[in-house]
Amino acid sequence: MQTMNKEIDKITPLEQDFAKWYTDVVKNGNLIAYGQSKGSIIFKPNSYGIWELIQKELNSVFSKKGIKNVYLPLLIPESLFKLETEHVEGFNPELATVTHVGEKELAEKFYIRPTSEVLFADLFKKSINSYNDLPLVYNQWANVVRWEKTTNPFLRSREFLWQEGHTCHSEPLEARRFTREMIKTYAKFLKEYLAIPTIIGKKTPKEKFAGACSTYTIEAMMKDGKALQSGTSHYLAQNFSKAFGITFKNNQNTEEYVYQTSWGVSTRLLGAIIMTHGDNRGIIIPPRIAPTQIDILEFFSKKSEKVQKIAKQLYVDLSRKYRVNLDSSDKNPGFKASNSEIQGVPVRIEIGPRDVENDIVTIVRRDTLEKIQTNINDVKKTIDFLMDDIHENLYNSAKQRLDNNTVFVTDYEEFKKEINNGKFVYSPFCCLDYAEERIKEETGASSRCIPIREFEKPDEKHKCIFENCDNKTNRYVIFAKAY
Amino acid sequence: MQTMNKEIDKITPLEQDFAKWYTDVVKNGNLIAYGQSKGSIIFKPNSYGIWELIQKELNSVFSKKGIKNVYLPLLIPESLFKLETEHVEGFNPELATVTHVGEKELAEKFYIRPTSEVLFADLFKKSINSYNDLPLVYNQWANVVRWEKTTNPFLRSREFLWQEGHTCHSEPLEARRFTREMIKTYAKFLKEYLAIPTIIGKKTPKEKFAGACSTYTIEAMMKDGKALQSGTSHYLAQNFSKAFGITFKNNQNTEEYVYQTSWGVSTRLLGAIIMTHGDNRGIIIPPRIAPTQIDILEFFSKKSEKVQKIAKQLYVDLSRKYRVNLDSSDKNPGFKASNSEIQGVPVRIEIGPRDVENDIVTIVRRDTLEKIQTNINDVKKTIDFLMDDIHENLYNSAKQRLDNNTVFVTDYEEFKKEINNGKFVYSPFCCLDYAEERIKEETGASSRCIPIREFEKPDEKHKCIFENCDNKTNRYVIFAKAY
Repeated sequence: MQTMNKEIDKITPLEQDFAKWYTDVVKNGNLIAYGQSKGSIIFKPNSYGIWELIQKELNSVFSKKGIKNVYLPLLIPESLFKLETEHVEGFNPELATVTHVGEKELAEKFYIRPTSEVLFADLFKKSINSYNDLPLVYNQWANVVRWEKTTNPFLRSREFLWQEGHTCHSEPLEARRFTREMIKTYAKFLKEYLAIPTIIGKKTPKEKFAGACSTYTIEAMMKDGKALQSGTSHYLAQNFSKAFGITFKNNQNTEEYVYQTSWGVSTRLLGAIIMTHGDNRGIIIPPRIAPTQIDILEFFSKKSEKVQKIAKQLYVDLSRKYRVNLDSSDKNPGFKASNSEIQGVPVRIEIGPRDVENDIVTIVRRDTLEKIQTNINDVKKTIDFLMDDIHENLYNSAKQRLDNNTVFVTDYEEFKKEINNGKFVYSPFCCLDYAEERIKEETGASSRCIPIREFEKPDEKHKCIFENCDNKTNRYVIFAKAY
Repeated sequence: MQTMNKEIDKITPLEQDFAKWYTDVVKNGNLIAYGQSKGSIIFKPNSYGIWELIQKELNSVFSKKGIKNVYLPLLIPESLFKLETEHVEGFNPELATVTHVGEKELAEKFYIRPTSEVLFADLFKKSINSYNDLPLVYNQWANVVRWEKTTNPFLRSREFLWQEGHTCHSEPLEARRFTREMIKTYAKFLKEYLAIPTIIGKKTPKEKFAGACSTYTIEAMMKDGKALQSGTSHYLAQNFSKAFGITFKNNQNTEEYVYQTSWGVSTRLLGAIIMTHGDNRGIIIPPRIAPTQIDILEFFSKKSEKVQKIAKQLYVDLSRKYRVNLDSSDKNPGFKASNSEIQGVPVRIEIGPRDVENDIVTIVRRDTLEKIQTNINDVKKTIDFLMDDIHENLYNSAKQRLDNNTVFVTDYEEFKKEINNGKFVYSPFCCLDYAEERIKEETGASSRCIPIREFEKPDEKHKCIFENCDNKTNRYVIFAKAY
């Protein structure tokens, strides 16, 4: 009891200090421990368990699209990495470099992969002969290292886990279509499994991936109004295939360079879950990817055989369909309930000696903390309902927040004010790198994306939001402070 | 047809040159591609698919034992690594060392994990307070790097994938018992899922893990008679807990160092599968971990709607229970059959226009190449039978080979002869490091293990097998040439 209450007291209210709230939440709830070196974290069972379920569900989505998993080397020889120049320039300052083995210096340096475009390029070069081999659609689950200066658990750490998909196509149109298909797949996945609404859009030239022709993104809004880029899909055109010589014989028997895409989501998603759904009691895990979906808590069960019997029976019944944990320890009820809450378990069932005499248990949902007195014969039905209802409720709350806090602004003074209010600001913008840098300096906001057609936008042209630009444009860009 | 037959022709018969046979098999069958740098390989879908199924099944075994998955950092700071001296000495020559980020030299070097004992030690130190926190039982799926001088795909590569379990206990007996429980778990898993028989035993002091008090191993016999260490489980005693200060308050409220174990299996198992079951047509994948369990091959289906209809129907029916691939391409039958064989798919169903008129299809099992004419209504039943029968047949053949080629020898001249014949030689031995080194120099054989009690052994003492030793001993050790 002592320990757990201390831990819960440690969570700073999110209204008071959001950054501190986030750190408090990730340190608790069996989520992470800090590693020995700056910016390194240990994924404890509750966070790694979420990641495993994300892997499982995404694998099932990928598999239906015929995407096959492969695994490529961790280390990239310097000579291979340097073949695509824009890519090198983008990643060079963050590359962890292996120069020695034991005390011995290596003849050639190796970089720990920050992403695997060049390794896949090498594989594709070896694997592709003719148009019959295309499209070639691979995915990899892997760890990558980017030596970031400022770090934040899940959101920006020096090593993170992700999946990176890499494809080759014979036609640019097909590749472009696939790039967009994958970003929509991610948006759907976040909606259906993580209960996170996102805005789908294209990155401005300044914000696109180093080496890509265009980058699509899904942007989510955290509870403090900041944006979190939650998944990206890149159309690489022939940038890598020309640098690496990845060719195929087309149906006229002529050699041509392939058209490529790459796309990924990472353990950042764990940060997105916390900052989209969490509250002052800790993380709230959406039911479909919760490592434990139901906590069954026996209260004072040493005194009541009936409590033990009912708990055991519910555990067996519910385990057929759900991931269930049974706590039969003799810890006190307050501790058990707090422990379940801080770990973000979507539903807990409290079984106490008095209620059980009337065949009643109490079901508590983590999102609203509502307590539902339920006859033991109705538990299964109630749980079935709650699993979907909690998901819907989490999604709808987040969607409402996103909608209410996205504003259309054409005046720069208002722009600055709304950015400061923590809004997503949707404004006319010409997309010049220089203008973006100035806006960032002046307001702290970066361009998040140019929303794709599905997103409602004004018909008429407006003056570019950047003070020193008099162009009229009908290109509208979302700006926000971002993680 | 051309391409595939060329590939099959490329497989050197195993009787002629086993090493070349192995290389030919791994290069074909959608298993690997070589990476850019020496000793690095790319896991293609057919090999990575096996590994994913091994992960899935082992996770399910682990989960029943209450083992939780976590993920720790890839990079180990030099200062942390150096705390356990025997461990450092054992791994130092193989450590890939990160010294720079971009062009900038780091203040402290980092090693890419060759194994994660020191990282877990650090986590345990932070997580454990009292005996209530014990036992603590974690597992990690990860990539590790060991800079080996000679490399061989799957068997010895500079980066490999594995799981490493790490536990802390309050009592030495409990920890020792857990060490043995895990090695038996591995032996059972290899038998039940990979159809590989193994000998369970303890490593001699010379062969034990650097930093362990004792190491248990499972040793499998490859088709050339060589041993492959296929899984290990280490009792670490208090070696790491003392070096890292991992203590707990016991029930007398006194601080004590924890007792630890660690245990792992790796992508070596893919090499074990190939060299235990493979034949001159390529890999044979045991049904329970085959990414594709059934290939349905349409023959001349463009001419026959009935072929297409039956194939589709079987695909739908069988997919409910099995991992099935349907090949409706218009490639020729010979190509399709060879392609299925070289990829090691346990069962293929050939559907041709003539047979199908009589409601007949041909089922071919990959292990014996036996062809079974089957009425389409009996396919499901036949497949159910074959999945188990192929597994049993693969296991029994391997077990028979292991039994027939393990010999008890007490005379050193005979020892040398039998080692040369590719046998596992079971001999009396005192276990002195010096003697083992000499035997290795003279015969090429290393000690594999001291088989545990379950293994039948002579009652009486014999003179140690080492020429220059006159001790009589009742400790018997298995020697063999090994990968």
